[in-house]
Amino acid sequence: MIAQTYLDMLNGKSVIRQLAEWSAARGAEIGYQNVFDYSLGNPSVPCPPQFTESMIRLLQTQEPVALHGYSPTLTIPAVRAAVAENLNRRFGMAYTAGHIFMTTGAAGAIAHALRCVAVPGQEVLTFAPYFPEYKPYAEGAGLTLRVVPPRVQDFQIDFEAFEAMLGENTAAVLINTPNNPSGIAYSPETLRRLADTLRAASARYGHHIFLISDEPYREIVFGGAPQQHPAAYYDDTLTCYSFSKSLSLPGERIGYVAANPRCERAADIVPLCGQISRGTGHNCPASIIQLAVAECLDTTSDLSVYERNMQLLYDELRKLGFTVVRPGGTFYIFPQALEADSVAFCRKAQAYDLALVPGDTFGCPGYFRMAYCIDTEKVLRSFAALERFVHEQYGAR
Amino acid sequence: MIAQTYLDMLNGKSVIRQLAEWSAARGAEIGYQNVFDYSLGNPSVPCPPQFTESMIRLLQTQEPVALHGYSPTLTIPAVRAAVAENLNRRFGMAYTAGHIFMTTGAAGAIAHALRCVAVPGQEVLTFAPYFPEYKPYAEGAGLTLRVVPPRVQDFQIDFEAFEAMLGENTAAVLINTPNNPSGIAYSPETLRRLADTLRAASARYGHHIFLISDEPYREIVFGGAPQQHPAAYYDDTLTCYSFSKSLSLPGERIGYVAANPRCERAADIVPLCGQISRGTGHNCPASIIQLAVAECLDTTSDLSVYERNMQLLYDELRKLGFTVVRPGGTFYIFPQALEADSVAFCRKAQAYDLALVPGDTFGCPGYFRMAYCIDTEKVLRSFAALERFVHEQYGAR
Repeated sequence: MIAQTYLDMLNGKSVIRQLAEWSAARGAEIGYQNVFDYSLGNPSVPCPPQFTESMIRLLQTQEPVALHGYSPTLTIPAVRAAVAENLNRRFGMAYTAGHIFMTTGAAGAIAHALRCVAVPGQEVLTFAPYFPEYKPYAEGAGLTLRVVPPRVQDFQIDFEAFEAMLGENTAAVLINTPNNPSGIAYSPETLRRLADTLRAASARYGHHIFLISDEPYREIVFGGAPQQHPAAYYDDTLTCYSFSKSLSLPGERIGYVAANPRCERAADIVPLCGQISRGTGHNCPASIIQLAVAECLDTTSDLSVYERNMQLLYDELRKLGFTVVRPGGTFYIFPQALEADSVAFCRKAQAYDLALVPGDTFGCPGYFRMAYCIDTEKVLRSFAALERFVHEQYGAR
Repeated sequence: MIAQTYLDMLNGKSVIRQLAEWSAARGAEIGYQNVFDYSLGNPSVPCPPQFTESMIRLLQTQEPVALHGYSPTLTIPAVRAAVAENLNRRFGMAYTAGHIFMTTGAAGAIAHALRCVAVPGQEVLTFAPYFPEYKPYAEGAGLTLRVVPPRVQDFQIDFEAFEAMLGENTAAVLINTPNNPSGIAYSPETLRRLADTLRAASARYGHHIFLISDEPYREIVFGGAPQQHPAAYYDDTLTCYSFSKSLSLPGERIGYVAANPRCERAADIVPLCGQISRGTGHNCPASIIQLAVAECLDTTSDLSVYERNMQLLYDELRKLGFTVVRPGGTFYIFPQALEADSVAFCRKAQAYDLALVPGDTFGCPGYFRMAYCIDTEKVLRSFAALERFVHEQYGAR
């Protein structure tokens, strides 16, 4: 008997993947360099040379049985200690190796974090616009994902709407800052008020409400703004991190869960993750990848192209009359579409070889996402297509 | 709120891990070379040089953005095609890339396979002695694992007991051949009768009962016996494979699910795996590891030490009067203990610096497992301890 649940999911194919497939097919016709593919959040800059060097050195110098041997259930102690030390130094935290659990990227981290702090039947709240994979992550853990409506003027938090949705059954709140798709980083005021709200709600409902902070874009912030670590604001925080964006390693599936040492039962979180792994078949991320990223914690890819692209696109979109909040980080921008139906808007854009993702995918209809992790030269070349699209479809503005 | 389910699991700590920890602690006292640690199934021979060479070549010659980029959801097409071709050539199958889904080892493969063919509330049957992680794998998928009692004279299948346990609610049957812990490979007769039994039961109950074949020890067979691929006997088979043992890469977490092209809805299995991955946070195994193993499909580590150790141990155990079935593969042997309480037996062995795992862990009390993936020199040195243990505790035999 084939499981119907997953058969049903097959029909709900990702809009982003469909667009990416369209871009590839269109590229086969007219040359991929002529398709302005803003669909996929795939880093466009190489990993830092340190990563490649670390990998080669490990392969050339380490004894293979030890190098490729089983990780301990809770992942490699020296790697966990190095991550803890790095976070402490950068964010004034007090993590030890005992608070860090290495995972297969942020997806693995969120899957573990949710199962640590919520039981089937409970709710997890997130804020629109949000990364659409949060839904299968929550449902895979037997939870219901409820989405707080967006505050479109700046994509910070609509606290009134948020407070109205918090309740007895709220086990956790899942945030993503800097945000995919809005590109917005929460301000210190937002993070402080979020922490206050969660403390009050935890007291009101008589249980710790956990904050799950998904922060793979932590290092991609613009204008020299400080990097944020929401766990520094709220004790009951589980941080979910991925090296996919900072080190341009999305295919190598490496990240971690970090349990705030001041959270409820902080010493149990990592052992719980070890148990959760058994049931999901996750086990550890690849040993050699764990060891190599541990040597690259103080470095990143050259991320400057993302800020350069953002500035060019932001100015162009403004010039064309778009309403758009200036991103504080990531490699996404999330302007308002020029008609209420953003799916129709994005479909029309395809005639101009522009691949734009409708905001509906992110729980925020009426907007669209551009992933500008592409060459600056292509961003600049896309402007003529963007201008023709806007002028021909929506008139002079 | 911390999830009680996983807190409860923390108390049921793995007996094998505890023994391994005892061995390490005892080793710190007397030198690890003096502890006869037969506890862990961790390969003792290095990966083949081809794997290291492939990794280094990929790192030195491939463009990093492409090399470390996201795998497609269904994993890397060229890797899947290479695995299919390899299985077809070796086992006369007709797999295509569309039937292969790369996973993080056999653990990931079994977690996916179970979710493909069973829904929460259903049962999966396995045969004692069995790998104890099958229980969390099944429970993690919301299933009940039921264990068919062992046929201790040869550790083939007790078909009478098996047939009595098959029922309406049986979604799948999980086998492991060559077997951990018994070391036994199912005979062609066993596999044929298993297939006949499953076909009859599928017809009787009106649904396809899937065979999930966990075969990480496929290449470790003794006496020049042919390698077995149970999918060749039964259409509704999902094969779960790991390169952990054949290439000595347990830490790199790489394996696959292969759906028999003749199984129910064969074309849907791999897309279903892609959906299942979303909910568990598994996603793909590391890209570079997928690419490197694809270049090593026709090779293995030098596995000859395992057969050498088996022969030595088997002869020694027989000399000491143990009842023991001669292993056909793996790096395990599973003799009958010299008293009914195999936990007590193994505890007494610790006084002789012997780490033996009681069969209770594998659903087969009264027996014990020795994992002889250690140096032959240490196997030979252990015989004096084994002899002292047997003679002092159980008298002349």
